[in-house]
Amino acid sequence: MQTACLIIIGNEILSGRTQDKNLSWLAKELNECGVRLLETRVIPDIRDTIIATVNECRAKFTYVFTTGGIGPTHDDITSECIASAFGAPYERNAQAAAILEKHYGDQINEARLKMAGMPKGARLILNPVSAAPGFHIGNVYVMAGVPSIMQAMFAHIRHDFKGGAKMLAKTISAYTTEGVIAEKLTAIQHRHANVEIGSYPFMRNGRLGVSLVSRAADAQALAACYGEIKAMLLGFTADVHEDDLAA
Amino acid sequence: MQTACLIIIGNEILSGRTQDKNLSWLAKELNECGVRLLETRVIPDIRDTIIATVNECRAKFTYVFTTGGIGPTHDDITSECIASAFGAPYERNAQAAAILEKHYGDQINEARLKMAGMPKGARLILNPVSAAPGFHIGNVYVMAGVPSIMQAMFAHIRHDFKGGAKMLAKTISAYTTEGVIAEKLTAIQHRHANVEIGSYPFMRNGRLGVSLVSRAADAQALAACYGEIKAMLLGFTADVHEDDLAA
Repeated sequence: MQTACLIIIGNEILSGRTQDKNLSWLAKELNECGVRLLETRVIPDIRDTIIATVNECRAKFTYVFTTGGIGPTHDDITSECIASAFGAPYERNAQAAAILEKHYGDQINEARLKMAGMPKGARLILNPVSAAPGFHIGNVYVMAGVPSIMQAMFAHIRHDFKGGAKMLAKTISAYTTEGVIAEKLTAIQHRHANVEIGSYPFMRNGRLGVSLVSRAADAQALAACYGEIKAMLLGFTADVHEDDLAA
Repeated sequence: MQTACLIIIGNEILSGRTQDKNLSWLAKELNECGVRLLETRVIPDIRDTIIATVNECRAKFTYVFTTGGIGPTHDDITSECIASAFGAPYERNAQAAAILEKHYGDQINEARLKMAGMPKGARLILNPVSAAPGFHIGNVYVMAGVPSIMQAMFAHIRHDFKGGAKMLAKTISAYTTEGVIAEKLTAIQHRHANVEIGSYPFMRNGRLGVSLVSRAADAQALAACYGEIKAMLLGFTADVHEDDLAA
């Protein structure tokens, strides 16, 4: 299984000021590529924390993605920390500097050129939104924190991630509660070890319900499990919907 | 400094199905209590991962909060994993069982009573929304994943967290860009080491701007830094707003 970890770097997420939108977007995109997001860490703009987290995660997962901290201001320290994590010199990337010089013209300055600072050996991740590129070194992909820019950057690298088995998902909802169906659901899970069943209660128009999400790489295994879940739910209520009413 | 780590437990967050809303809410509440959220981890419903993450984080931070995985279904394994992490027996808590029996009446069953399974020695965190309590053991607080329930649980325990210095914040926005102000902003940051300045670009009605957030425990230090930032911005543009236009 190809696995991934997302490291969200930024005090603004941890202070509650900014709501992260990159996790859910990237999780779905990676799944389309057959890569499974297995962990996410949200960490502050603290040098030692960034370096230690990147080194721990790049040893543990197939791919590591970072978002945030690659702008021109003093609190943008991600690129320098990635260089330290890899023990690589932190230097001005000539190709990135050329892009920034072309984009800013006579408005170029040292702060903007700081965005060309990268570990030696980094490969650029182009940014069609605001020019300043991210980069890729080893199994670590360094991207912007602004969602529109991150998404454009990922579009540029998504062909790097191919060949893993995509997880398929099928969801069914019913107006019953988890406590009612739990025992029979557990039995179904035991019979279908290759399928991962998640149970998510919801409230809709004042009524309690539960959505059951089955996930598997194998379409036949998924269909078999889903069929049993549907039959089980219909044993409790006719109010069953082959849809995700909770989402 | 009193520190905290939030561990968000749930495949549904990592698959992108569900957008987490607990991080930003809890970050703000903890700050009001003088506790600083320094890290968040999002991990799957995998036993070994939960145990290892809880043990790593409870040694590293003053408080650890978990959300998710305490319901009645097979994928709710948080409580049992917390018991293992503490090397404590996992047993039916009599007080929790009594609450569930009272709440469900003759609808009580084994699956629902599973929600009374807790480490020996746990103290309950009451749940006025849907009865099933969370719990607290050592410096770890185990709460529900559903935001309305998590928030009600936190209201029940927030008096546990007192006395730390609350971080104060003051934000100012201007229609200029990071690359223009970065050099002068860095100089201000260097003069105010006790203030943490964050710089966040935004786009509003098609215009680029930047919001600068100053954060400090000391009100005088914050005011002095903020004053310098305001004067600096007014040196570039008259279009300065003492407000967070990005949020």
